[in-house]
Amino acid sequence: MFFHIKELQYNAKPDRPDPVYAKKLQEVLGGQFGEISVMMQYLFQGWNCRGEQKYRDMLLDIGTEEMAHVEMLATMIAQLLDGAPANVQEEAAKDPVIHSVLGGMNPQHVIVSGLGVTPTDSVGYPWNSRYIIASGNMLADFRANLNAESQGRLQVVRLYESTTDKGVRDMLSFLIARDTMHQNQWMAAIEELEASQKPIVPSTFPQDLEKQEVSYSFMNFSQGEESRNGRWASGPSMDGQAQFEYIHEPKAMGQIPVLGQAPAYIHNSPI
Amino acid sequence: MFFHIKELQYNAKPDRPDPVYAKKLQEVLGGQFGEISVMMQYLFQGWNCRGEQKYRDMLLDIGTEEMAHVEMLATMIAQLLDGAPANVQEEAAKDPVIHSVLGGMNPQHVIVSGLGVTPTDSVGYPWNSRYIIASGNMLADFRANLNAESQGRLQVVRLYESTTDKGVRDMLSFLIARDTMHQNQWMAAIEELEASQKPIVPSTFPQDLEKQEVSYSFMNFSQGEESRNGRWASGPSMDGQAQFEYIHEPKAMGQIPVLGQAPAYIHNSPI
Amino acid sequence: MFFHIKELQYNAKPDRPDPVYAKKLQEVLGGQFGEISVMMQYLFQGWNCRGEQKYRDMLLDIGTEEMAHVEMLATMIAQLLDGAPANVQEEAAKDPVIHSVLGGMNPQHVIVSGLGVTPTDSVGYPWNSRYIIASGNMLADFRANLNAESQGRLQVVRLYESTTDKGVRDMLSFLIARDTMHQNQWMAAIEELEASQKPIVPSTFPQDLEKQEVSYSFMNFSQGEESRNGRWASGPSMDGQAQFEYIHEPKAMGQIPVLGQAPAYIHNSPI
Amino acid sequence: MFFHIKELQYNAKPDRPDPVYAKKLQEVLGGQFGEISVMMQYLFQGWNCRGEQKYRDMLLDIGTEEMAHVEMLATMIAQLLDGAPANVQEEAAKDPVIHSVLGGMNPQHVIVSGLGVTPTDSVGYPWNSRYIIASGNMLADFRANLNAESQGRLQVVRLYESTTDKGVRDMLSFLIARDTMHQNQWMAAIEELEASQKPIVPSTFPQDLEKQEVSYSFMNFSQGEESRNGRWASGPSMDGQAQFEYIHEPKAMGQIPVLGQAPAYIHNSPI
Amino acid sequence: MFFHIKELQYNAKPDRPDPVYAKKLQEVLGGQFGEISVMMQYLFQGWNCRGEQKYRDMLLDIGTEEMAHVEMLATMIAQLLDGAPANVQEEAAKDPVIHSVLGGMNPQHVIVSGLGVTPTDSVGYPWNSRYIIASGNMLADFRANLNAESQGRLQVVRLYESTTDKGVRDMLSFLIARDTMHQNQWMAAIEELEASQKPIVPSTFPQDLEKQEVSYSFMNFSQGEESRNGRWASGPSMDGQAQFEYIHEPKAMGQIPVLGQAPAYIHNSPI
Amino acid sequence: MFFHIKELQYNAKPDRPDPVYAKKLQEVLGGQFGEISVMMQYLFQGWNCRGEQKYRDMLLDIGTEEMAHVEMLATMIAQLLDGAPANVQEEAAKDPVIHSVLGGMNPQHVIVSGLGVTPTDSVGYPWNSRYIIASGNMLADFRANLNAESQGRLQVVRLYESTTDKGVRDMLSFLIARDTMHQNQWMAAIEELEASQKPIVPSTFPQDLEKQEVSYSFMNFSQGEESRNGRWASGPSMDGQAQFEYIHEPKAMGQIPVLGQAPAYIHNSPI
Ligand SMILES: [Ca+2]
Ligand SMILES: [Ca+2]
Ligand SMILES: [Ca+2]
Ligand SMILES: [Ca+2]
Ligand SMILES: [Ca+2]
Ligand SMILES: [Ca+2]
Repeated sequence: MFFHIKELQYNAKPDRPDPVYAKKLQEVLGGQFGEISVMMQYLFQGWNCRGEQKYRDMLLDIGTEEMAHVEMLATMIAQLLDGAPANVQEEAAKDPVIHSVLGGMNPQHVIVSGLGVTPTDSVGYPWNSRYIIASGNMLADFRANLNAESQGRLQVVRLYESTTDKGVRDMLSFLIARDTMHQNQWMAAIEELEASQKPIVPSTFPQDLEKQEVSYSFMNFSQGEESRNGRWASGPSMDGQAQFEYIHEPKAMGQIPVLGQAPAYIHNSPI
Repeated sequence: MFFHIKELQYNAKPDRPDPVYAKKLQEVLGGQFGEISVMMQYLFQGWNCRGEQKYRDMLLDIGTEEMAHVEMLATMIAQLLDGAPANVQEEAAKDPVIHSVLGGMNPQHVIVSGLGVTPTDSVGYPWNSRYIIASGNMLADFRANLNAESQGRLQVVRLYESTTDKGVRDMLSFLIARDTMHQNQWMAAIEELEASQKPIVPSTFPQDLEKQEVSYSFMNFSQGEESRNGRWASGPSMDGQAQFEYIHEPKAMGQIPVLGQAPAYIHNSPI
Repeated sequence: MFFHIKELQYNAKPDRPDPVYAKKLQEVLGGQFGEISVMMQYLFQGWNCRGEQKYRDMLLDIGTEEMAHVEMLATMIAQLLDGAPANVQEEAAKDPVIHSVLGGMNPQHVIVSGLGVTPTDSVGYPWNSRYIIASGNMLADFRANLNAESQGRLQVVRLYESTTDKGVRDMLSFLIARDTMHQNQWMAAIEELEASQKPIVPSTFPQDLEKQEVSYSFMNFSQGEESRNGRWASGPSMDGQAQFEYIHEPKAMGQIPVLGQAPAYIHNSPI
Repeated sequence: MFFHIKELQYNAKPDRPDPVYAKKLQEVLGGQFGEISVMMQYLFQGWNCRGEQKYRDMLLDIGTEEMAHVEMLATMIAQLLDGAPANVQEEAAKDPVIHSVLGGMNPQHVIVSGLGVTPTDSVGYPWNSRYIIASGNMLADFRANLNAESQGRLQVVRLYESTTDKGVRDMLSFLIARDTMHQNQWMAAIEELEASQKPIVPSTFPQDLEKQEVSYSFMNFSQGEESRNGRWASGPSMDGQAQFEYIHEPKAMGQIPVLGQAPAYIHNSPI
Repeated sequence: MFFHIKELQYNAKPDRPDPVYAKKLQEVLGGQFGEISVMMQYLFQGWNCRGEQKYRDMLLDIGTEEMAHVEMLATMIAQLLDGAPANVQEEAAKDPVIHSVLGGMNPQHVIVSGLGVTPTDSVGYPWNSRYIIASGNMLADFRANLNAESQGRLQVVRLYESTTDKGVRDMLSFLIARDTMHQNQWMAAIEELEASQKPIVPSTFPQDLEKQEVSYSFMNFSQGEESRNGRWASGPSMDGQAQFEYIHEPKAMGQIPVLGQAPAYIHNSPI
Repeated sequence: MFFHIKELQYNAKPDRPDPVYAKKLQEVLGGQFGEISVMMQYLFQGWNCRGEQKYRDMLLDIGTEEMAHVEMLATMIAQLLDGAPANVQEEAAKDPVIHSVLGGMNPQHVIVSGLGVTPTDSVGYPWNSRYIIASGNMLADFRANLNAESQGRLQVVRLYESTTDKGVRDMLSFLIARDTMHQNQWMAAIEELEASQKPIVPSTFPQDLEKQEVSYSFMNFSQGEESRNGRWASGPSMDGQAQFEYIHEPKAMGQIPVLGQAPAYIHNSPI
């Protein structure tokens, strides 16, 4: 169960309205790696957690924090939309800067939400839950989380570079700092899990059931062998089980497929 | 530019048709973490790569291999669908096992694809490109890739456990082994990049521009302090810059938001 | 079965082309609350109607009218696109107003539809049928309809405010008037149904099967008690069955969830 | 900002696992009118609220409660999945009831979420934010909310009828009761707003700008006049401004559209 | 503008309810190539038509007919759902056939639509407008239409083979016959247009602006030359402009791409 | 299995960056009829092919070529994005042309992909696999392919007209030429199949099972008889089986639908 307090986790006060920037900022609210994604991902992982209680608690701690980030961004975007020009006078329409603002903002910020935030990304695409994962395997999921925080911080940094508004930058500097923590956090949790189990997910599948001839081979399917110069192409494998091997010219090991004819009632092409 | 050879990378020969299992197997072809996702993710990362050529080559190597995995699964699924019962006789319809096969398979495998594979997941949801990421930042993206291979191997293992067909299991044992390699590969590439830059993505953003007071604090937003017992709550941070701190009762640092009224031409609620 | 006549229900004649406005106007054609939504919603409710014939007839009357509205908007948008600049001369490209028109219009209006309307909203997102509902319960559905006409009229009014083109405004004044009628219509139909059954949907579920202790309690989950000052917080409930009650500090009534471990073949995190 | 406590708002304890029912129950979690929808709709309306603080507070109160409902359903579904048969033995596969369970459950509950809840509906379709609305006009939005609670309670009641599990029914009886309150609440809030402004949304648009000849006419576009027998076809209009009128044979008032030719560089059909 | 009459274009009377078949039949109502698709495609092509009036009239004729097909299927599906078992008794649940019906039907047919049709396909995926095209070029679009009628008739035939219900088959025999006509119709319209313009779309682009060296070459990118034995590999081209040529070993004609570094403010991978 | 070589199939070298054009060019990469669509459509048709090997080989030849087209476009778009202005200086922001570039480009090209291509169309909508078809019936599918190449060439031509960049036009002239070949190719393959089977898909369904009274009738459902003047309205049918007939006033042949009441446990509207 949840409770809400009225204060924001951190200030969300732009210096001035900027509806074109409001459109862009939607990316980190409702985009693939926006705050709605991490909020929902952590909460669902917490609710599905069948492991130690410290993981469940931790997931619900951070999932609950992310809701506060959604709230901060929503508040910021609504304020950036103050004064968005819906009511075009003939005069104004001739001013090229106003014209380009009208063209550059998200029209739904006027027509649909009446100068409010929308649960969408920077091109107006709605958030959807195929963005998130809660697999029941925490090592897998914490890697998803580290990725989400990495993509998320990258996007916020790019948005920081795209504005000179001090109020906006102040809020983003807070989100960037929290993403620093959250990358650290998932790295720590991953290290802990990798220590207590093997690093290959899932660690519980008996490796002798896999086709071990190809478990440590890098296969060169694109002309050129520049890829030979990476850590992945030679030396001990990261799981400590074998040596990496570089396959210069990978060979096919399978059949040439020939499918049988479909029964008549399927009405595929007659032969 | 690409070339195709007719042989599969590895055998895809089921012992017998099983249309209900065909529906399930679609998950690792066309699902969120299926082979289409990794194929497209690696190719787009390769084509967008502005870094060292060894990374571009490596991404195109593995992206090209994933196409062969899509092909193997497609071939397997088409064969599992051989003999799917479209043409129901009155008699058969009374047999409860046939009845449940009819109910349990994906109806589009008959109606839409005529006993062929579809580019969808195990509930028939179409693959879409919001599943993938190519951000231009390789450390971020390699974490996405490690996650994809972790979720992917987990799903294939669960599918391995869900069948006793020896031919299917043989093919899956190959895919599982390749995912072992690919997890190893991304771990190796990540280690390399983390060594040459700092581990927090993006490493190029000056950390003094972030709100450093909160860069290393774990905040306890869910009642209960079980989360205090994790590596993320104390000790040196993973990036080596500071000590983790546990905030027992996190405080709001922001304003209570009060939005201004919208202009009359927006026709929001009158006040 | 349907018949079509060539005349539009009302005039759709813009004074002049305006491709940026054409993009915006798409919202009320193909958006969440556009004319395609109400057309499909009313037709599906009509076809599914298992109640009195007067409701079925009424739903098909209005669903059929909405098709005429789709047609008017489609015609208007195609005309607003006349003269959209696809063929950019070097010269023109330097004119900032032309530049912003090029940036502000929907590129698919040139590339995909060749100056024709598209079945999408103002950000180019395709119409989809999860926008609509036909539940089989008419009181529920008529509330959906009243909402659709309320959101729809609001959006059309905002679009009216966003142009000075007299021809466009003339057409919109017709659609606004019809939405006035349609809001009135659904209010009338709702009043009729609420009189013949109880106002809580579905009225047929025995109320003694619900947890009646919490059937009339407003729960204060967000800090601050401003919400106590509403009609919903005290006085008789709207269904006339009880008194509203304001719960200052709502208490949890449930367990702390602890999920069991998953079986080994699921390969969740080992414990 | 939010805080979480570990106890559920109400008990979520099924008597026994039932993976086929788990699939169905997803509808009211992640479907068009599920708990995620109302949670997100109320929170976004609250964050966008530019009206009186009592409305903002009320919206955040109820939005925060809905999060607890998401949590209860998530917990219930995870438990209903306990013991879902992933690991099919040859023997079991011949048992038609087990066979139909395998066919009837959502395969992603095994393959993707490892016996956990997914943020999807009962056919596995992901939740997306085009389900919700926060328009900035509270009367419009409260009608959306009344609709959502009506559809929601209807769906929960149908799910109550679809199980005999006492634990499940106990939890549903709580959700049904809360929906009774929430329908009452939105009716109360709507009554309040309709009293302080006119009932037609938006009430601020000058009615003399609409085409008033058609503002109160019911138009008979489907053969048969059964629709004449409704409250909407005669008598005073619901907004008290006029009398309803029944148009037996509605006439077209617009032009026959003839579109101009597209410019050559569009390459439409040559004429 | 449209009018509706109450009679269906053809009978839609099943012999008996069959909720599992109802789920399948949804494919040709709300699927990629279902009746909603052709209805919307023809209407939008008609409304966008800037060519001769006979084409516009013809498109609106057939678009209007397709609405009657949507109506017939909707009516049929609602009747097939009569008697769908929502209310499971403990007893019934043990009957494997009832069990498999429960597992095999679309749960939304009970929970969401209350035994009514839904605007979705056979896996419950909603119809969306990216299924259709109205490009402004009629030859292109009539090819889309011929494809839609070909896929559509194929799907209806497969559904005909999947039932023994005489009433259902009677209705499908009507739809199959209409698809026979519609395939004939689009072939006729295509022949007419190909005669009056060149067969390559768009016929108005000067062919000397294309890279004519590769305008008639079949390129063998998949190992094996079975493809040499087709009409497409030798002989005069279909447009009568040249001879087909078979390129045994196609060569790359382009550069090896090397992208420049991104500017610092993009924060891509440091080099 | 596939192999990749580093050279592009043809040059992709723009004269200069143009981020607004980059956004538009995405349409033919990731749109409904873009290169990803044809690549996936041909590969899936090839993998599903149960017909003669020459068709399978041909489909894999062309599917493999389309991957090279995806690669060329991806490379071109990344280069067009070089120098996209993310880092707005106060000064620059006042320049209306820069302003309109900022408004006219896809913000995700900066925020999400860091100046890289995205797998989306020109409005940022993600590619999804419901764009493609592989039905198992080759005549049906080759018609889909001819349509795809017709729409595709039309779109590329429109994009050719929308730029004056010589490098871009050079690459597009190659794609246009290949689409000329591919339209020719599918016409040739269709001619071959129509000769060996009947032209109505599927040719294997006994025509005496369809309702032959309506198999060759054009029905005039839209007022006005301009449609009588087409090849489709009189003369021999295209399949050579009958004469086209023009039905001036089509009559309904079906019942007036009256649905039965739903059972009580569905809780539809009470009657
Ligand atoms: Ca290589
Ligand atoms: Ca805690
Ligand atoms: Ca409160
Ligand atoms: Ca009527
Ligand atoms: Ca070949
Ligand atoms: Ca006509």
